[in-house]
Amino acid sequence: MGGLKYLCYVLLGPMIFFTFCLHATMAGKVLVFPVDGSHWINMHVMIEGLHARGHEVTVVRTSTSWYIKESSPHYKSITVTLPEAVFIEDPDFFVSFLSKMLEINRQGGSPLAFMKFLWEMFTTLAKIHQQASQLVVEMFENKALMEELRATHYDVALIDPGIPAGVLVAHKLELPIVFNVRWITSGEGHFVVAPSPVSYVPTSGCAVSNQMTFGERVKNALRYIINVCSDHFIVTPPYNALMARYFGPDANFYHLLQGVDLWLMRVDFVFEFPRPTMPNIIYIGGFQCKPAKPIPAELQEFVDGSGEHGLIVMSLGTLVKGLPIDITSEIAAAFAQLPQRVIWRHLGEQPSNLGNNTLLVKWLPQNDLLGHPKTRLFVTHGGTNGVYESIYHGVPVVGVPLLFDQFENMLRLKVRGAAKIVDVATLDSQVFLTAIQEVLHQPSYRDNMQRLSRLHKDRPMHPLESALYWIEFVMRHKGAAHLRTESYKMPWYSYHSLDVVGLLLAVLLTLVGVVVLIVRFLSLRLCRRQKPKLE
Amino acid sequence: MGGLKYLCYVLLGPMIFFTFCLHATMAGKVLVFPVDGSHWINMHVMIEGLHARGHEVTVVRTSTSWYIKESSPHYKSITVTLPEAVFIEDPDFFVSFLSKMLEINRQGGSPLAFMKFLWEMFTTLAKIHQQASQLVVEMFENKALMEELRATHYDVALIDPGIPAGVLVAHKLELPIVFNVRWITSGEGHFVVAPSPVSYVPTSGCAVSNQMTFGERVKNALRYIINVCSDHFIVTPPYNALMARYFGPDANFYHLLQGVDLWLMRVDFVFEFPRPTMPNIIYIGGFQCKPAKPIPAELQEFVDGSGEHGLIVMSLGTLVKGLPIDITSEIAAAFAQLPQRVIWRHLGEQPSNLGNNTLLVKWLPQNDLLGHPKTRLFVTHGGTNGVYESIYHGVPVVGVPLLFDQFENMLRLKVRGAAKIVDVATLDSQVFLTAIQEVLHQPSYRDNMQRLSRLHKDRPMHPLESALYWIEFVMRHKGAAHLRTESYKMPWYSYHSLDVVGLLLAVLLTLVGVVVLIVRFLSLRLCRRQKPKLE
Repeated sequence: MGGLKYLCYVLLGPMIFFTFCLHATMAGKVLVFPVDGSHWINMHVMIEGLHARGHEVTVVRTSTSWYIKESSPHYKSITVTLPEAVFIEDPDFFVSFLSKMLEINRQGGSPLAFMKFLWEMFTTLAKIHQQASQLVVEMFENKALMEELRATHYDVALIDPGIPAGVLVAHKLELPIVFNVRWITSGEGHFVVAPSPVSYVPTSGCAVSNQMTFGERVKNALRYIINVCSDHFIVTPPYNALMARYFGPDANFYHLLQGVDLWLMRVDFVFEFPRPTMPNIIYIGGFQCKPAKPIPAELQEFVDGSGEHGLIVMSLGTLVKGLPIDITSEIAAAFAQLPQRVIWRHLGEQPSNLGNNTLLVKWLPQNDLLGHPKTRLFVTHGGTNGVYESIYHGVPVVGVPLLFDQFENMLRLKVRGAAKIVDVATLDSQVFLTAIQEVLHQPSYRDNMQRLSRLHKDRPMHPLESALYWIEFVMRHKGAAHLRTESYKMPWYSYHSLDVVGLLLAVLLTLVGVVVLIVRFLSLRLCRRQKPKLE
Repeated sequence: MGGLKYLCYVLLGPMIFFTFCLHATMAGKVLVFPVDGSHWINMHVMIEGLHARGHEVTVVRTSTSWYIKESSPHYKSITVTLPEAVFIEDPDFFVSFLSKMLEINRQGGSPLAFMKFLWEMFTTLAKIHQQASQLVVEMFENKALMEELRATHYDVALIDPGIPAGVLVAHKLELPIVFNVRWITSGEGHFVVAPSPVSYVPTSGCAVSNQMTFGERVKNALRYIINVCSDHFIVTPPYNALMARYFGPDANFYHLLQGVDLWLMRVDFVFEFPRPTMPNIIYIGGFQCKPAKPIPAELQEFVDGSGEHGLIVMSLGTLVKGLPIDITSEIAAAFAQLPQRVIWRHLGEQPSNLGNNTLLVKWLPQNDLLGHPKTRLFVTHGGTNGVYESIYHGVPVVGVPLLFDQFENMLRLKVRGAAKIVDVATLDSQVFLTAIQEVLHQPSYRDNMQRLSRLHKDRPMHPLESALYWIEFVMRHKGAAHLRTESYKMPWYSYHSLDVVGLLLAVLLTLVGVVVLIVRFLSLRLCRRQKPKLE
């Protein structure tokens, strides 16, 4: 029976794949607008999938792209040269941005520090979107390019709306749009398209859980207001200016986003807190995860040497070249005191106090290492990719969040008892060591992460298959109008039924008024009749 | 290549099935609380599926059950005898209920008729739930039965919450709960568990689309208020009384419903308007649909005789024994003028003016007839089962809605251009004939229905497979806590952030007040200083 079961499993995969390939009779054309950095790693997985199914993929990139290569076996590319180099495509930007943020972080939670933080975030956001919107101008003004794009008759635009410039281009080309999304404008994707009661839905940028105290709810609501203002005054103005210029004065950029056909949301509810959603949101959180492959021989030797104590993997992701040397030295000192072996993806200056058990590498096969049976712990900044890979492989986490959503991501794992967070502002070797030892030796961390892993893997279809299925769905049916509401077209007071409530209140008050008048009139009449009797 | 493709398709089905069977190592125990009538037809499909996967199914029925048989190859049953026969399990009830409703309907849309309608609905609802709640008492007071149920260690309770008595029993047995649901308490399932802005979500009982005029929005909001009142004062009181009696004074029946693990919603968005949803809602609309089997020989002969004109199928569902003879005679007269042949599921008095082209039958294989290539049109009351079967097979519809949700169901098909509605109050042979001829001869009806059919069938997994997968998911993981919010536990003013808004307004007003005071103080000081100069 076991052999039969095995045979069945072994045959099933290729059979499904082959049938899918045969099913995809229509080899379509996909126009992709990606975001650079870690987002691209994700998007590339999807592009490989589309390519494998016979679709023709075209990627729009800038000439200063960092991760997105011009030539690839999986896609053709269109390179757009912007008036100035895109600053967020420069790795050095993140080094200086991180050091500013660390500086602010070290000032603790003071209002002044928070104001500084907001100022940094807002000026950066404004600059990012001001630059990104230039992509639209360059493309729209290049008549030959637009003509060529139009003549290609793409079936769908696949866009990471972290940088939403592609939405305008797709709109110009009248293409159905699929988002590969977690972040958009000033926050998480749901906030643009689904009802999001801030009483239990944590706002982007606010590291609170879905069960908040009154104080946390106030904080969450304030952060929501800040995000709405940021959307309104900082992120969308450059795009709205282009909407007015190219689509007329009534065109509304936010409505373009809200009218997108399908949202492939890089979210899974083993990680995200449950919250309202919409029929055109497909959850693909962890779609990049896959079983581990064998690791390279030189690493294998190092890992094998870890014996019963096992391995710790550390990486701070694609954006950050390195932490300041004072912090990395504290980390190195803590690692040196452990019986485990450590593989640490490290760029920048090397700490002098490195233990014999610690191997620094410029790059590591993260998924394969996390899936290695000897791996006991993952030390991460809390980027989405790493978090999902740790969930997939059931490896508990010590988190050192540095920027952006990393604080919220780590909080979600912490609330589930699967991670411990170390504040980089107060990190020293003792604090770091204690955190690591706690996660290594308290079985609850591993048990909880393994439970999340089982829940995450238990789904009818792998999230990548699901993503590809729904992209093809939109290609087949030229959109997915039946899955999306057009409620965003209503005025806000109508959407919230304030006009109806106003009318009903007016009717009610009028009725009450009439009744009061009648009662007063009758009582007056009665009094008049009764008075003579009394006299 | 064609042969290979065919081989692949042929092998894939059994492979997936076999792998599923192997995967479902845990043969579980399912306790089912169904609802009688057409709901049971649905639930039985799910029970057959569970049985085929090796699960042991136990169905709780009353001794007066109408459709739910005591013995079956697919399930064991527990029969509960209630103090009085369940009146909605008596087919004659619906005959008299329908005649009352037709009478009210004929009075047109007058306020008096609407009040009468509400009165009938409310008294019927009150009676239904008063009776149904007795099931809980009978079970709870039967110590031996409860002991036996507890000792059986069920893995999950599968409940149709149209009659939600089973929820209390499952709660007592501490079982995870899966709903097979479209209707619950006073309306559609979403209203209990998902945000439902009445500005674009049609309320149950209100036949409006998702794009409403101001007047329709007022009507929709009023109907929403009526439904909330009906929930509060009519449907839940008997269950809340039992909650207090068996679970203590703080227990809240509505919270039990809102805390259910998984909602298998008998809804698909080719039919329902898009609206907010929740992560623990799985859409299984049309899960009972399947390809047509060959029809019985005697019907086949009749159908073949229809020639190029094809066939019309008519059925008014499981609840209604028959329409009044004056209406059926008008229908028969209209059918007699058509070149098509008609198969009419008809109970009760036979109209005397039946045409030669019309065959009356006591029962018909509805799915097989709708899937027959000669079928041109379906005349239906607009029950959910029939509507989904017509969508599945792409057959356009003439609807004669009579009761309950049938008006809303038909409206949804009409808005999509796939059906024409005939008002039974004004139905005569000419009106009926015109409607039929319009749907037969305007290609848009068939085209639209075929488009809905393509969209409906294009999904990664058949909705029945999906339903079974998620029931087993809940069995495997003993619930689905990570998919459901606990926001219902918040006080309503906290859920809607009214306390936070209150605080923020108070702070804002205080600030404004302080600023005003300072300005007044300063201006007074300035005035005083300036005055001497002026003098």
